[in-house]
Amino acid sequence: MISPKYLSRSLFIHTLLLFAALCSLNAQAQTRDPLPSWNDNHARARIIAFVDAVTEQGGKDYVPPAERIAVFDNDGTLWSEQPIYFQAQFIIDRVKALAPRHPEWKTTQPFKGILEGDMKSVVASGEKGLLELVMATHSGSTTDEFRQIVLDWLATARHPKYKRPYNELIYQPMLELLAYLRANGFKTYIVSGGGVEFMRAWVEKAYGIPPEQVIGSTIKTKYELRNGKPVIVRIPQLDFNDDKAGKPVAINQYIGRRPIAAFGNSDGDFQMLEWVTSGNGPRLGMIVHHDDGEREYAYDRKSFIGKLARGLDEAPQRGWSLISMKQDWKQIYPQDK
Amino acid sequence: MISPKYLSRSLFIHTLLLFAALCSLNAQAQTRDPLPSWNDNHARARIIAFVDAVTEQGGKDYVPPAERIAVFDNDGTLWSEQPIYFQAQFIIDRVKALAPRHPEWKTTQPFKGILEGDMKSVVASGEKGLLELVMATHSGSTTDEFRQIVLDWLATARHPKYKRPYNELIYQPMLELLAYLRANGFKTYIVSGGGVEFMRAWVEKAYGIPPEQVIGSTIKTKYELRNGKPVIVRIPQLDFNDDKAGKPVAINQYIGRRPIAAFGNSDGDFQMLEWVTSGNGPRLGMIVHHDDGEREYAYDRKSFIGKLARGLDEAPQRGWSLISMKQDWKQIYPQDK
Repeated sequence: MISPKYLSRSLFIHTLLLFAALCSLNAQAQTRDPLPSWNDNHARARIIAFVDAVTEQGGKDYVPPAERIAVFDNDGTLWSEQPIYFQAQFIIDRVKALAPRHPEWKTTQPFKGILEGDMKSVVASGEKGLLELVMATHSGSTTDEFRQIVLDWLATARHPKYKRPYNELIYQPMLELLAYLRANGFKTYIVSGGGVEFMRAWVEKAYGIPPEQVIGSTIKTKYELRNGKPVIVRIPQLDFNDDKAGKPVAINQYIGRRPIAAFGNSDGDFQMLEWVTSGNGPRLGMIVHHDDGEREYAYDRKSFIGKLARGLDEAPQRGWSLISMKQDWKQIYPQDK
Repeated sequence: MISPKYLSRSLFIHTLLLFAALCSLNAQAQTRDPLPSWNDNHARARIIAFVDAVTEQGGKDYVPPAERIAVFDNDGTLWSEQPIYFQAQFIIDRVKALAPRHPEWKTTQPFKGILEGDMKSVVASGEKGLLELVMATHSGSTTDEFRQIVLDWLATARHPKYKRPYNELIYQPMLELLAYLRANGFKTYIVSGGGVEFMRAWVEKAYGIPPEQVIGSTIKTKYELRNGKPVIVRIPQLDFNDDKAGKPVAINQYIGRRPIAAFGNSDGDFQMLEWVTSGNGPRLGMIVHHDDGEREYAYDRKSFIGKLARGLDEAPQRGWSLISMKQDWKQIYPQDK
């Protein structure tokens, strides 16, 4: 039998070791950088100060977890959007893939323009033409079929500059930001002008954002039985354009309360930032500024895609902070090292 | 100084006591009934068997937490709906409150019918008349103002039979079911034909369901600035009727994946039950059957409100279980004892 004295010493030593291990773990947790791809500049400091403030129990800016909602634009905020929105590239590729079934497209704009690479004609077809392209490439399938079409496209399409799949062109610093917010009790939402089903096919894996936290533009759908099995069919009719003033409208419709933090990159996000940051209590509004022409693309005021002018002008007076991709980010994409 | 021998004995005793306490806690957790207001009948057993199956790590029916989504109709499923939908009573009371500002209503149907208590004229005004009533009572305000209007109504209005506020007429057994599902990793959603902003004003407090998990019928809204402050204004135009085949459409739009459990009470929930229970893997479809004329109301096939005919006929072949309010529930409302 083990002597009580030996047991006592052994227990004492074990307790000491356990205590030391716990202290070390705690120190690790405190010193582990939650945003390792962010340089130690204003943007990073502002994010951390905001999170510290809203999570400090008993602090004057404390926000209960249920109200910790952060909204993110997608194109140009969480992933790249140049030289054209990636969903626009999907439309182009899809028109080409479907063309054999539509001989009339050879002579009908805007399809003719797409097939001949004549983007001037496509742009000249205006909003009506664009809508035709969306409907021809996004409707007619069931929701399950459409998801598979998007996944198949992501598996094969490559970005012209980076030669990588589009869903790898997501911003590493924003992935860290999403994880940091969630670790602090936030629910993270996408609120994007992009199509909701186009995003839901891949964003859960890419960003850890589940489908029910993805808000986007929608086309109408209908419920029907096919061979006795229910399906949801995408029909060629615009339901909602989730851009500009549509963003706060959609936030209210889907979330039902005002988020406390918003991240965007273009004037399409202006009203979302305005809505979020004009609520009471602590608010965080931030704009990803595309000023890194070397590692990504440099654009703002005059860009056709992702134009940022009013946001740049009014950010200071509205208390919105810019995130400079060039100065604030050590790394752009997860695969960069 | 305390002798090592004494310390050892003391530690030994404390460890024993701690162990005993943990065992007792564990036994309590295992024996504490998660559904105390449910009689030990088939409905209760089916719910528990389903939850056990989808949460059993390594079991053949295991479902990861992210996919554990349960949807609930509201009127007649989570709270009462007789003698008329409570939101219809809100409309009646609201028309009366607003009447002084609308002298023309004294001579115009369907308002005249409401003011004179002549429901035949109101019903005769058909869908168009009903829509006029909804718009006159649900639009024009900002979302914040409307929320306050609903809360003020709940604070003063009383149910004609029970003489209680409407938001107390929620079903105690369903509250236990919601909590039980959530304790097992489920996200619980409302998917109701009722107005989404009407519900969001009070359901978080009543059911523990946050606004972002409430799906309902919607009217259009718009974003605007009032004295430089952004507001969301409710405009008199129907956006979406979340009933019948609209329910699976809305589930797909808001949640983006198929739930694994659905609870309804009327044929308005038929397609939601069909959509949920025709997915692969374990599925649970249940119907609250209003067969307790004494404690609540007894109705199904011929009822104007909450008609249940097809659901009753097809429940057996579709594997949907009925919840008999009379036989399966010990208690109806939280205040009953």
